[in-house]
Amino acid sequence: MDRYCPIPSPTDSDTLACLSVLVKIQHNLLECHDSETLFASLLPDIRLAACTSYAYFFRNVPLFDGQPTYSLVAESHLPNLPPRKDHPNFALLPHAHLPNWTATLMNHGLVFGTPNDFAGEERFFMSLHGIHSILLVPVIAGKQFLGFLGIDDCVEERKWSEADKALLQNVAFALAHALLRLQTTQNLQRACQEKTELMEILAHDLKNPLSAISLSVDTLLRKHDRISSEQLEKRLFQIKELVHRMTDICHQMLRESICLPLNLVSRPCTPSRLALRI
Amino acid sequence: MDRYCPIPSPTDSDTLACLSVLVKIQHNLLECHDSETLFASLLPDIRLAACTSYAYFFRNVPLFDGQPTYSLVAESHLPNLPPRKDHPNFALLPHAHLPNWTATLMNHGLVFGTPNDFAGEERFFMSLHGIHSILLVPVIAGKQFLGFLGIDDCVEERKWSEADKALLQNVAFALAHALLRLQTTQNLQRACQEKTELMEILAHDLKNPLSAISLSVDTLLRKHDRISSEQLEKRLFQIKELVHRMTDICHQMLRESICLPLNLVSRPCTPSRLALRI
Repeated sequence: MDRYCPIPSPTDSDTLACLSVLVKIQHNLLECHDSETLFASLLPDIRLAACTSYAYFFRNVPLFDGQPTYSLVAESHLPNLPPRKDHPNFALLPHAHLPNWTATLMNHGLVFGTPNDFAGEERFFMSLHGIHSILLVPVIAGKQFLGFLGIDDCVEERKWSEADKALLQNVAFALAHALLRLQTTQNLQRACQEKTELMEILAHDLKNPLSAISLSVDTLLRKHDRISSEQLEKRLFQIKELVHRMTDICHQMLRESICLPLNLVSRPCTPSRLALRI
Repeated sequence: MDRYCPIPSPTDSDTLACLSVLVKIQHNLLECHDSETLFASLLPDIRLAACTSYAYFFRNVPLFDGQPTYSLVAESHLPNLPPRKDHPNFALLPHAHLPNWTATLMNHGLVFGTPNDFAGEERFFMSLHGIHSILLVPVIAGKQFLGFLGIDDCVEERKWSEADKALLQNVAFALAHALLRLQTTQNLQRACQEKTELMEILAHDLKNPLSAISLSVDTLLRKHDRISSEQLEKRLFQIKELVHRMTDICHQMLRESICLPLNLVSRPCTPSRLALRI
Protein backbone atom coordinates (compact mmCIF):
# COMPACT_ATOMS: atom_id res chain seq x y z
CA MET A 1 0.00 0.00 0.00
CA ASP A 2 1.19 3.50 -0.72
CA ARG A 3 1.97 5.17 2.57
CA TYR A 4 0.76 8.54 3.63
CA CYS A 5 3.67 10.81 4.60
CA PRO A 6 2.79 14.33 5.67
CA ILE A 7 5.87 16.47 5.38
CA PRO A 8 6.23 18.81 8.35
CA SER A 9 6.85 22.44 7.51
CA PRO A 10 9.09 24.48 9.86
CA THR A 11 7.92 24.29 13.46
CA ASP A 12 5.56 27.11 14.30
CA SER A 13 2.39 27.61 16.26
CA ASP A 14 0.31 27.53 13.04
CA THR A 15 1.55 24.02 12.29
CA LEU A 16 0.95 22.86 15.85
CA ALA A 17 -2.60 24.23 15.82
CA CYS A 18 -3.23 22.71 12.40
CA LEU A 19 -1.94 19.30 13.53
CA SER A 20 -4.03 19.41 16.72
CA VAL A 21 -7.19 20.11 14.74
CA LEU A 22 -6.30 17.46 12.20
CA VAL A 23 -5.78 14.84 14.92
CA LYS A 24 -9.17 15.69 16.37
CA ILE A 25 -10.93 15.66 12.97
CA GLN A 26 -9.32 12.40 11.88
CA HIS A 27 -10.27 10.85 15.18
CA ASN A 28 -13.89 11.90 14.75
CA LEU A 29 -13.84 10.54 11.19
CA LEU A 30 -12.53 7.20 12.49
CA GLU A 31 -15.27 7.14 15.09
CA CYS A 32 -18.17 8.29 12.94
CA HIS A 33 -20.99 5.99 11.78
CA ASP A 34 -23.14 8.34 9.66
CA SER A 35 -22.44 11.20 7.29
CA GLU A 36 -24.59 13.72 9.19
CA THR A 37 -22.58 13.33 12.42
CA LEU A 38 -19.43 13.31 10.34
CA PHE A 39 -20.01 16.79 8.90
CA ALA A 40 -21.42 18.14 12.15
CA SER A 41 -18.10 17.36 13.84
CA LEU A 42 -15.89 18.35 10.93
CA LEU A 43 -16.99 21.73 9.64
CA PRO A 44 -17.07 23.77 12.88
CA ASP A 45 -13.53 22.53 13.63
CA ILE A 46 -12.29 23.66 10.21
CA ARG A 47 -14.03 27.03 10.42
CA LEU A 48 -12.66 27.78 13.88
CA ALA A 49 -9.14 26.58 13.02
CA ALA A 50 -9.03 28.84 9.95
CA CYS A 51 -10.80 31.74 11.78
CA THR A 52 -13.15 32.20 8.86
CA SER A 53 -16.81 32.92 8.05
CA TYR A 54 -18.02 29.71 6.41
CA ALA A 55 -16.82 26.12 6.14
CA TYR A 56 -18.86 23.78 3.92
CA PHE A 57 -19.02 20.64 1.81
CA PHE A 58 -20.53 20.49 -1.68
CA ARG A 59 -21.46 16.99 -2.82
CA ASN A 60 -21.14 16.07 -6.49
CA VAL A 61 -24.68 15.10 -7.55
CA PRO A 62 -24.62 14.37 -11.31
CA LEU A 63 -27.99 15.17 -12.88
CA PHE A 64 -29.78 12.66 -15.08
CA ASP A 65 -28.31 14.34 -18.19
CA GLY A 66 -24.82 13.53 -16.86
CA GLN A 67 -23.89 17.19 -16.20
CA PRO A 68 -21.86 17.58 -13.00
CA THR A 69 -23.84 19.54 -10.43
CA TYR A 70 -23.03 20.32 -6.81
CA SER A 71 -25.18 20.61 -3.74
CA LEU A 72 -24.29 22.18 -0.40
CA VAL A 73 -25.00 19.31 2.01
CA ALA A 74 -23.41 20.67 5.18
CA GLU A 75 -22.03 23.99 6.49
CA SER A 76 -20.80 25.81 9.56
CA HIS A 77 -20.99 29.62 9.70
CA LEU A 78 -20.33 32.56 12.00
CA PRO A 79 -23.41 33.11 14.18
CA ASN A 80 -24.03 36.59 12.68
CA LEU A 81 -24.07 35.30 9.10
CA PRO A 82 -27.06 33.64 7.38
CA PRO A 83 -27.08 29.91 6.52
CA ARG A 84 -26.77 29.23 2.81
CA LYS A 85 -28.09 25.69 2.61
CA ASP A 86 -31.55 26.66 1.42
CA HIS A 87 -30.34 29.34 -1.03
CA PRO A 88 -31.07 28.08 -4.59
CA ASN A 89 -27.53 28.98 -5.76
CA PHE A 90 -26.08 26.66 -3.13
CA ALA A 91 -28.77 23.97 -3.05
CA LEU A 92 -28.09 23.12 -6.70
CA LEU A 93 -25.04 24.60 -8.32
CA PRO A 94 -24.45 23.53 -11.94
CA HIS A 95 -20.87 22.97 -13.09
CA ALA A 96 -21.47 25.63 -15.80
CA HIS A 97 -22.00 28.34 -13.14
CA LEU A 98 -18.39 28.03 -11.92
CA PRO A 99 -16.67 26.30 -14.87
CA ASN A 100 -13.08 27.30 -14.06
CA TRP A 101 -13.21 26.35 -10.38
CA THR A 102 -14.92 23.03 -10.86
CA ALA A 103 -12.59 22.07 -13.74
CA THR A 104 -9.57 22.79 -11.50
CA LEU A 105 -11.08 20.81 -8.61
CA MET A 106 -11.95 17.82 -10.80
CA ASN A 107 -8.29 17.74 -11.84
CA HIS A 108 -7.13 17.51 -8.19
CA GLY A 109 -6.26 21.22 -8.06
CA LEU A 110 -6.85 23.77 -5.31
CA VAL A 111 -8.86 26.96 -5.82
CA PHE A 112 -7.91 29.98 -3.68
CA GLY A 113 -7.97 33.73 -3.95
CA THR A 114 -9.89 36.98 -3.82
CA PRO A 115 -12.36 38.24 -6.47
CA ASN A 116 -9.52 39.98 -8.34
CA ASP A 117 -7.76 36.64 -8.82
CA PHE A 118 -10.69 35.30 -10.86
CA ALA A 119 -12.61 36.32 -13.95
CA GLY A 120 -16.13 35.92 -15.31
CA GLU A 121 -18.60 33.65 -13.54
CA GLU A 122 -16.40 33.06 -10.49
CA ARG A 123 -15.79 36.75 -9.75
CA PHE A 124 -19.54 37.41 -10.16
CA PHE A 125 -20.38 34.50 -7.81
CA MET A 126 -18.06 35.87 -5.11
CA SER A 127 -19.41 39.42 -5.29
CA LEU A 128 -23.00 38.16 -5.37
CA HIS A 129 -22.50 36.27 -2.08
CA GLY A 130 -20.17 38.76 -0.39
CA ILE A 131 -17.17 36.40 -0.40
CA HIS A 132 -13.89 38.29 0.00
CA SER A 133 -11.62 35.24 -0.02
CA ILE A 134 -12.25 31.60 -0.91
CA LEU A 135 -10.32 28.33 -0.56
CA LEU A 136 -11.65 25.11 -2.15
CA VAL A 137 -10.13 21.61 -2.13
CA PRO A 138 -11.46 18.53 -3.96
CA VAL A 139 -12.63 15.36 -2.16
CA ILE A 140 -11.64 12.52 -4.47
CA ALA A 141 -11.96 8.78 -3.84
CA GLY A 142 -10.43 6.55 -6.48
CA LYS A 143 -11.53 8.12 -9.74
CA GLN A 144 -14.70 9.40 -8.10
CA PHE A 145 -14.94 13.15 -7.57
CA LEU A 146 -17.19 13.17 -4.48
CA GLY A 147 -17.34 16.95 -4.14
CA PHE A 148 -15.31 19.68 -2.49
CA LEU A 149 -14.59 21.24 0.88
CA GLY A 150 -14.45 25.00 1.11
CA ILE A 151 -13.88 27.94 3.43
CA ASP A 152 -14.93 31.54 2.75
CA ASP A 153 -13.96 34.78 4.42
CA CYS A 154 -16.87 37.23 4.14
CA VAL A 155 -15.31 39.86 6.41
CA GLU A 156 -12.07 40.78 4.67
CA GLU A 157 -9.73 39.83 1.86
CA ARG A 158 -6.99 37.53 3.13
CA LYS A 159 -4.15 35.37 1.95
CA TRP A 160 -4.71 31.79 3.08
CA SER A 161 -1.73 30.41 5.02
CA GLU A 162 0.07 27.22 4.04
CA ALA A 163 -1.33 25.71 7.26
CA ASP A 164 -4.90 26.52 6.11
CA LYS A 165 -4.30 24.84 2.75
CA ALA A 166 -2.56 21.82 4.31
CA LEU A 167 -5.34 21.41 6.87
CA LEU A 168 -8.08 21.49 4.26
CA GLN A 169 -6.21 19.11 1.93
CA ASN A 170 -5.52 16.62 4.69
CA VAL A 171 -9.10 16.78 5.93
CA ALA A 172 -10.37 16.29 2.35
CA PHE A 173 -8.19 13.23 2.03
CA ALA A 174 -9.36 11.74 5.35
CA LEU A 175 -12.96 12.63 4.46
CA ALA A 176 -12.73 10.73 1.16
CA HIS A 177 -11.76 7.59 3.12
CA ALA A 178 -14.48 8.10 5.72
CA LEU A 179 -17.15 8.62 3.02
CA LEU A 180 -15.95 5.50 1.18
CA ARG A 181 -16.12 3.51 4.41
CA LEU A 182 -19.69 4.66 5.08
CA GLN A 183 -20.57 3.81 1.47
CA THR A 184 -19.07 0.32 1.82
CA THR A 185 -21.00 -0.36 5.02
CA GLN A 186 -24.23 0.93 3.48
CA ASN A 187 -23.69 -1.20 0.34
CA LEU A 188 -23.14 -4.31 2.43
CA GLN A 189 -26.16 -3.60 4.62
CA ARG A 190 -28.28 -3.03 1.50
CA ALA A 191 -27.02 -6.27 -0.09
CA CYS A 192 -27.89 -8.19 3.11
CA GLN A 193 -31.31 -6.58 3.20
CA GLU A 194 -31.94 -7.36 -0.48
CA LYS A 195 -31.03 -10.99 0.04
CA THR A 196 -33.37 -11.19 3.04
CA GLU A 197 -36.22 -9.63 1.06
CA LEU A 198 -35.55 -11.87 -1.92
CA MET A 199 -35.66 -14.97 0.28
CA GLU A 200 -38.96 -13.81 1.76
CA ILE A 201 -40.47 -13.06 -1.66
CA LEU A 202 -39.36 -16.39 -3.14
CA ALA A 203 -40.56 -18.33 -0.08
CA HIS A 204 -43.98 -16.70 -0.46
CA ASP A 205 -43.95 -17.29 -4.23
CA LEU A 206 -43.36 -20.98 -3.57
CA LYS A 207 -46.11 -21.32 -1.00
CA ASN A 208 -48.94 -20.60 -3.47
CA PRO A 209 -48.18 -23.37 -5.97
CA LEU A 210 -47.43 -25.73 -3.05
CA SER A 211 -50.88 -25.06 -1.59
CA ALA A 212 -52.44 -25.52 -5.03
CA ILE A 213 -50.70 -28.91 -5.50
CA SER A 214 -51.69 -29.99 -2.02
CA LEU A 215 -55.30 -29.08 -2.73
CA SER A 216 -55.29 -30.89 -6.09
CA VAL A 217 -53.81 -34.04 -4.56
CA ASP A 218 -56.39 -33.98 -1.75
CA THR A 219 -59.20 -33.65 -4.32
CA LEU A 220 -57.79 -36.53 -6.35
CA LEU A 221 -57.44 -38.70 -3.23
CA ARG A 222 -61.07 -38.03 -2.39
CA LYS A 223 -62.59 -38.34 -5.87
CA HIS A 224 -60.26 -40.41 -8.06
CA ASP A 225 -62.70 -43.33 -8.28
CA ARG A 226 -65.54 -41.06 -9.33
CA ILE A 227 -63.91 -38.82 -11.95
CA SER A 228 -63.30 -39.44 -15.64
CA SER A 229 -59.88 -40.20 -17.08
CA GLU A 230 -59.91 -36.77 -18.79
CA GLN A 231 -60.58 -34.98 -15.52
CA LEU A 232 -57.75 -36.91 -13.83
CA GLU A 233 -55.37 -36.00 -16.67
CA LYS A 234 -56.42 -32.37 -16.49
CA ARG A 235 -55.60 -32.28 -12.76
CA LEU A 236 -52.25 -33.98 -13.32
CA PHE A 237 -51.32 -31.48 -16.05
CA GLN A 238 -52.18 -28.64 -13.67
CA ILE A 239 -49.82 -30.14 -11.05
CA LYS A 240 -47.10 -30.47 -13.70
CA GLU A 241 -47.53 -26.81 -14.61
CA LEU A 242 -47.21 -25.79 -10.96
CA VAL A 243 -44.05 -27.89 -10.59
CA HIS A 244 -42.60 -26.07 -13.63
CA ARG A 245 -43.37 -22.73 -12.04
CA MET A 246 -41.62 -23.75 -8.81
CA THR A 247 -38.61 -25.07 -10.71
CA ASP A 248 -38.33 -21.65 -12.37
CA ILE A 249 -38.39 -19.99 -8.92
CA CYS A 250 -35.57 -22.31 -7.74
CA HIS A 251 -33.48 -21.38 -10.77
CA GLN A 252 -34.16 -17.74 -10.03
CA MET A 253 -32.93 -18.28 -6.43
CA LEU A 254 -29.68 -19.75 -7.71
CA ARG A 255 -29.22 -16.96 -10.26
CA GLU A 256 -30.01 -14.16 -7.81
CA SER A 257 -27.84 -15.59 -5.03
CA ILE A 258 -24.90 -15.35 -7.41
CA CYS A 259 -25.89 -12.02 -9.00
CA LEU A 260 -26.21 -9.91 -5.85
CA PRO A 261 -22.86 -8.19 -5.42
CA LEU A 262 -20.53 -9.45 -2.70
CA ASN A 263 -17.37 -7.49 -3.37
CA LEU A 264 -18.74 -4.19 -2.14
CA VAL A 265 -15.68 -2.78 -0.43
CA SER A 266 -14.81 0.44 -2.24
CA ARG A 267 -11.16 1.33 -2.62
CA PRO A 268 -9.93 4.89 -2.25
CA CYS A 269 -7.41 6.69 -4.39
CA THR A 270 -3.74 6.37 -3.48
CA PRO A 271 -2.31 9.27 -1.48
CA SER A 272 0.15 10.06 -4.25
CA ARG A 273 -2.75 11.47 -6.28
CA LEU A 274 -2.98 14.43 -3.94
CA ALA A 275 -0.21 16.78 -2.97
CA LEU A 276 -0.28 16.52 0.83
CA ARG A 277 1.84 18.81 2.88
CA ILE A 278 1.74 19.87 6.51
CA MET B 1 -22.10 11.84 20.17
CA ASP B 2 -19.39 12.45 22.69
CA ARG B 3 -16.65 14.51 21.09
CA TYR B 4 -12.98 13.71 21.16
CA CYS B 5 -10.98 16.66 22.50
CA PRO B 6 -7.23 16.17 22.75
CA ILE B 7 -5.86 18.75 25.17
CA PRO B 8 -2.59 20.24 23.90
CA SER B 9 0.25 20.25 26.41
CA PRO B 10 2.73 23.18 26.28
CA THR B 11 4.12 23.68 22.79
CA ASP B 12 7.38 21.81 22.33
CA SER B 13 9.06 19.78 19.66
CA ASP B 14 8.01 16.53 21.39
CA THR B 15 4.37 17.47 21.03
CA LEU B 16 4.82 18.49 17.42
CA ALA B 17 6.57 15.21 16.57
CA CYS B 18 3.91 13.26 18.46
CA LEU B 19 1.09 15.03 16.61
CA SER B 20 2.77 14.51 13.22
CA VAL B 21 3.08 10.77 13.85
CA LEU B 22 -0.46 10.60 15.15
CA VAL B 23 -1.81 12.35 12.03
CA LYS B 24 0.04 9.85 9.86
CA ILE B 25 -1.09 6.83 11.89
CA GLN B 26 -4.72 7.95 12.05
CA HIS B 27 -4.66 8.58 8.33
CA ASN B 28 -3.37 5.06 7.68
CA LEU B 29 -6.03 3.67 10.01
CA LEU B 30 -8.73 5.54 8.06
CA GLU B 31 -7.34 4.19 4.83
CA CYS B 32 -6.72 0.61 5.90
CA HIS B 33 -8.83 -2.35 4.72
CA ASP B 34 -7.27 -5.29 6.56
CA SER B 35 -5.72 -5.80 9.99
CA GLU B 36 -2.38 -7.03 8.65
CA THR B 37 -1.73 -3.83 6.67
CA LEU B 38 -3.04 -1.87 9.61
CA PHE B 39 -0.37 -3.14 12.04
CA ALA B 40 2.34 -3.09 9.38
CA SER B 41 1.81 0.66 9.00
CA LEU B 42 1.23 1.36 12.68
CA LEU B 43 3.94 -0.32 14.74
CA PRO B 44 7.09 0.90 12.94
CA ASP B 45 5.76 4.47 13.22
CA ILE B 46 5.22 4.09 16.97
CA ARG B 47 8.61 2.47 17.54
CA LEU B 48 10.47 5.15 15.58
CA ALA B 49 8.52 8.00 17.19
CA ALA B 50 9.34 6.70 20.70
CA CYS B 51 12.95 5.77 19.71
CA THR B 52 12.54 2.38 21.33
CA SER B 53 13.40 -1.30 20.82
CA TYR B 54 10.02 -2.96 20.31
CA ALA B 55 6.47 -1.85 19.49
CA TYR B 56 3.78 -4.53 19.47
CA PHE B 57 0.13 -5.44 19.80
CA PHE B 58 -1.19 -8.30 21.94
CA ARG B 59 -4.68 -9.48 21.03
CA ASN B 60 -7.03 -10.73 23.74
CA VAL B 61 -7.80 -14.32 22.75
CA PRO B 62 -9.96 -15.85 25.51
CA LEU B 63 -9.36 -19.60 25.76
CA PHE B 64 -12.25 -22.07 25.77
CA ASP B 65 -12.17 -22.14 29.60
CA GLY B 66 -12.89 -18.38 29.58
CA GLN B 67 -9.46 -17.41 30.97
CA PRO B 68 -8.14 -14.21 29.37
CA THR B 69 -5.05 -14.97 27.32
CA TYR B 70 -3.03 -12.73 25.03
CA SER B 71 -1.22 -13.38 21.81
CA LEU B 72 1.40 -11.21 20.11
CA VAL B 73 -0.12 -10.71 16.65
CA ALA B 74 2.15 -7.97 15.30
CA GLU B 75 5.45 -6.30 16.20
CA SER B 76 8.16 -3.96 14.99
CA HIS B 77 11.68 -4.23 16.40
CA LEU B 78 15.16 -2.77 16.05
CA PRO B 79 16.99 -4.63 13.26
CA ASN B 80 19.63 -5.99 15.67
CA LEU B 81 17.03 -7.51 18.04
CA PRO B 82 15.29 -10.87 17.53
CA PRO B 83 11.58 -11.10 16.64
CA ARG B 84 9.44 -12.39 19.50
CA LYS B 85 6.35 -13.49 17.61
CA ASP B 86 7.26 -17.18 17.59
CA HIS B 87 8.51 -17.25 21.20
CA PRO B 88 6.07 -19.38 23.27
CA ASN B 89 5.89 -16.71 26.03
CA PHE B 90 4.62 -14.18 23.50
CA ALA B 91 2.61 -16.46 21.21
CA LEU B 92 0.29 -17.38 24.07
CA LEU B 93 0.53 -15.36 27.26
CA PRO B 94 -1.97 -16.33 29.98
CA HIS B 95 -3.44 -13.59 32.13
CA ALA B 96 -2.01 -15.37 35.21
CA HIS B 97 1.57 -14.85 34.00
CA LEU B 98 1.24 -11.06 34.33
CA PRO B 99 -1.76 -10.69 36.67
CA ASN B 100 -1.06 -7.13 37.88
CA TRP B 101 -0.43 -5.65 34.45
CA THR B 102 -3.39 -7.27 32.75
CA ALA B 103 -5.75 -6.35 35.60
CA THR B 104 -4.64 -2.69 35.30
CA LEU B 105 -5.06 -2.72 31.51
CA MET B 106 -8.51 -4.32 31.67
CA ASN B 107 -9.53 -1.46 33.97
CA HIS B 108 -8.47 1.16 31.38
CA GLY B 109 -5.19 1.85 33.19
CA LEU B 110 -1.69 2.38 31.78
CA VAL B 111 1.30 0.22 32.76
CA PHE B 112 4.74 1.86 32.67
CA GLY B 113 8.06 1.54 34.46
CA THR B 114 11.33 -0.29 34.95
CA PRO B 115 11.77 -3.71 36.65
CA ASN B 116 12.18 -2.00 40.05
CA ASP B 117 8.71 -0.49 39.72
CA PHE B 118 7.12 -3.93 39.66
CA ALA B 119 7.09 -7.04 41.80
CA GLY B 120 6.69 -10.79 41.31
CA GLU B 121 5.73 -12.16 37.94
CA GLU B 122 6.07 -8.85 36.09
CA ARG B 123 9.63 -8.13 37.29
CA PHE B 124 10.60 -11.72 36.39
CA PHE B 125 9.03 -11.38 32.92
CA MET B 126 11.01 -8.17 32.23
CA SER B 127 14.35 -9.61 33.34
CA LEU B 128 13.71 -12.83 31.41
CA HIS B 129 13.24 -10.89 28.17
CA GLY B 130 15.82 -8.18 28.78
CA ILE B 131 13.24 -5.39 29.00
CA HIS B 132 14.63 -2.32 30.81
CA SER B 133 11.50 -0.16 30.43
CA ILE B 134 7.97 -0.95 29.38
CA LEU B 135 4.83 1.08 28.47
CA LEU B 136 1.50 -0.67 27.86
CA VAL B 137 -1.90 0.86 26.98
CA PRO B 138 -5.21 -0.98 26.62
CA VAL B 139 -7.19 -1.14 23.35
CA ILE B 140 -10.83 -1.11 24.41
CA ALA B 141 -13.92 -0.98 22.18
CA GLY B 142 -17.22 -0.62 24.01
CA LYS B 143 -16.93 -3.08 26.86
CA GLN B 144 -14.66 -5.29 24.81
CA PHE B 145 -11.00 -5.44 25.88
CA LEU B 146 -9.44 -6.15 22.46
CA GLY B 147 -5.85 -6.30 23.73
CA PHE B 148 -3.00 -3.88 24.39
CA LEU B 149 -0.36 -1.87 22.59
CA GLY B 150 3.13 -1.81 24.05
CA ILE B 151 6.62 -0.42 23.64
CA ASP B 152 9.77 -1.80 25.30
CA ASP B 153 13.23 -0.35 25.69
CA CYS B 154 15.75 -3.20 25.80
CA VAL B 155 18.81 -0.93 25.69
CA GLU B 156 18.45 1.22 28.78
CA GLU B 157 16.13 2.17 31.61
CA ARG B 158 14.16 5.27 30.71
CA LYS B 159 11.32 7.44 31.90
CA TRP B 160 8.61 7.55 29.24
CA SER B 161 7.69 11.14 28.30
CA GLU B 162 4.15 12.47 28.49
CA ALA B 163 4.28 12.66 24.67
CA ASP B 164 5.09 8.90 24.49
CA LYS B 165 2.14 8.08 26.74
CA ALA B 166 -0.22 10.42 24.90
CA LEU B 167 0.84 9.04 21.53
CA LEU B 168 0.26 5.43 22.60
CA GLN B 169 -3.09 6.22 24.23
CA ASN B 170 -4.36 8.14 21.21
CA VAL B 171 -3.18 5.43 18.83
CA ALA B 172 -4.87 2.77 21.01
CA PHE B 173 -8.08 4.73 20.86
CA ALA B 174 -7.93 5.16 17.06
CA LEU B 175 -6.95 1.49 16.70
CA ALA B 176 -10.02 0.37 18.66
CA HIS B 177 -12.22 2.21 16.14
CA ALA B 178 -10.32 0.86 13.15
CA LEU B 179 -10.53 -2.73 14.48
CA LEU B 180 -14.27 -2.30 15.13
CA ARG B 181 -14.76 -0.98 11.61
CA LEU B 182 -12.92 -3.98 10.11
CA GLN B 183 -15.00 -6.28 12.33
CA THR B 184 -18.23 -4.62 11.17
CA THR B 185 -17.29 -4.98 7.50
CA GLN B 186 -16.26 -8.62 8.00
CA ASN B 187 -19.52 -9.38 9.87
CA LEU B 188 -21.59 -7.86 7.07
CA GLN B 189 -19.63 -9.68 4.38
CA ARG B 190 -20.03 -12.95 6.30
CA ALA B 191 -23.79 -12.36 6.73
CA CYS B 192 -24.13 -11.71 2.96
CA GLN B 193 -22.12 -14.83 2.21
CA GLU B 194 -24.21 -16.94 4.59
CA LYS B 195 -27.43 -15.74 3.00
CA THR B 196 -26.07 -16.58 -0.45
CA GLU B 197 -25.05 -20.06 0.66
CA LEU B 198 -28.38 -20.63 2.38
CA MET B 199 -30.27 -19.63 -0.76
CA GLU B 200 -28.16 -22.04 -2.80
CA ILE B 201 -28.67 -24.91 -0.33
CA LEU B 202 -32.42 -24.36 -0.10
CA ALA B 203 -32.76 -24.04 -3.89
CA HIS B 204 -30.97 -27.37 -4.27
CA ASP B 205 -33.05 -28.91 -1.47
CA LEU B 206 -36.20 -27.92 -3.35
CA LYS B 207 -35.07 -29.28 -6.68
CA ASN B 208 -35.05 -32.94 -5.55
CA PRO B 209 -38.68 -33.16 -4.38
CA LEU B 210 -39.74 -31.11 -7.45
CA SER B 211 -38.07 -33.63 -9.76
CA ALA B 212 -39.67 -36.48 -7.81
CA ILE B 213 -43.15 -34.93 -8.13
CA SER B 214 -42.59 -34.26 -11.83
CA LEU B 215 -41.57 -37.90 -12.34
CA SER B 216 -44.56 -39.20 -10.41
CA VAL B 217 -47.00 -37.04 -12.36
CA ASP B 218 -45.45 -38.19 -15.67
CA THR B 219 -45.82 -41.83 -14.62
CA LEU B 220 -49.44 -41.27 -13.61
CA LEU B 221 -50.17 -39.51 -16.90
CA ARG B 222 -48.76 -42.46 -18.82
CA LYS B 223 -50.24 -45.30 -16.74
CA HIS B 224 -53.32 -44.02 -14.90
CA ASP B 225 -55.72 -46.13 -16.93
CA ARG B 226 -53.70 -49.28 -16.28
CA ILE B 227 -52.98 -49.04 -12.54
CA SER B 228 -55.10 -49.99 -9.56
CA SER B 229 -56.85 -47.51 -7.34
CA GLU B 230 -54.42 -48.43 -4.50
CA GLN B 231 -51.38 -47.75 -6.68
CA LEU B 232 -52.82 -44.38 -7.71
CA GLU B 233 -53.47 -43.48 -4.05
CA LYS B 234 -49.96 -44.56 -3.08
CA ARG B 235 -48.48 -42.24 -5.73
CA LEU B 236 -50.71 -39.37 -4.63
CA PHE B 237 -49.67 -39.81 -0.98
CA GLN B 238 -46.03 -39.73 -2.05
CA ILE B 239 -46.65 -36.42 -3.84
CA LYS B 240 -48.39 -35.09 -0.72
CA GLU B 241 -45.40 -36.09 1.39
CA LEU B 242 -43.03 -34.27 -1.00
CA VAL B 243 -45.22 -31.15 -0.88
CA HIS B 244 -44.99 -31.23 2.92
CA ARG B 245 -41.21 -31.42 2.76
CA MET B 246 -41.07 -28.42 0.42
CA THR B 247 -43.45 -26.44 2.62
CA ASP B 248 -41.05 -27.08 5.52
CA ILE B 249 -38.17 -25.74 3.41
CA CYS B 250 -40.17 -22.58 2.61
CA HIS B 251 -40.84 -22.04 6.31
CA GLN B 252 -37.14 -22.51 6.99
CA MET B 253 -36.35 -19.85 4.34
CA LEU B 254 -38.66 -17.39 6.07
CA ARG B 255 -37.23 -18.19 9.50
CA GLU B 256 -33.60 -18.01 8.40
CA SER B 257 -34.08 -14.80 6.41
CA ILE B 258 -35.23 -13.16 9.63
CA CYS B 259 -32.73 -14.89 11.94
CA LEU B 260 -29.49 -13.96 10.17
CA PRO B 261 -28.26 -10.82 11.92
CA LEU B 262 -28.65 -7.50 10.13
CA ASN B 263 -27.62 -5.01 12.76
CA LEU B 264 -23.94 -5.83 12.62
CA VAL B 265 -22.44 -2.39 13.03
CA SER B 266 -20.37 -2.49 16.20
CA ARG B 267 -20.27 0.58 18.37
CA PRO B 268 -17.08 1.71 20.08
CA CYS B 269 -16.68 2.98 23.61
CA THR B 270 -17.14 6.70 24.22
CA PRO B 271 -13.94 8.73 24.40
CA SER B 272 -14.68 9.74 27.96
CA ARG B 273 -13.81 6.20 29.06
CA LEU B 274 -10.15 6.84 28.30
CA ALA B 275 -8.03 9.68 29.57
CA LEU B 276 -6.76 11.24 26.36
CA ARG B 277 -4.16 13.92 26.50
CA ILE B 278 -1.71 15.33 24.01
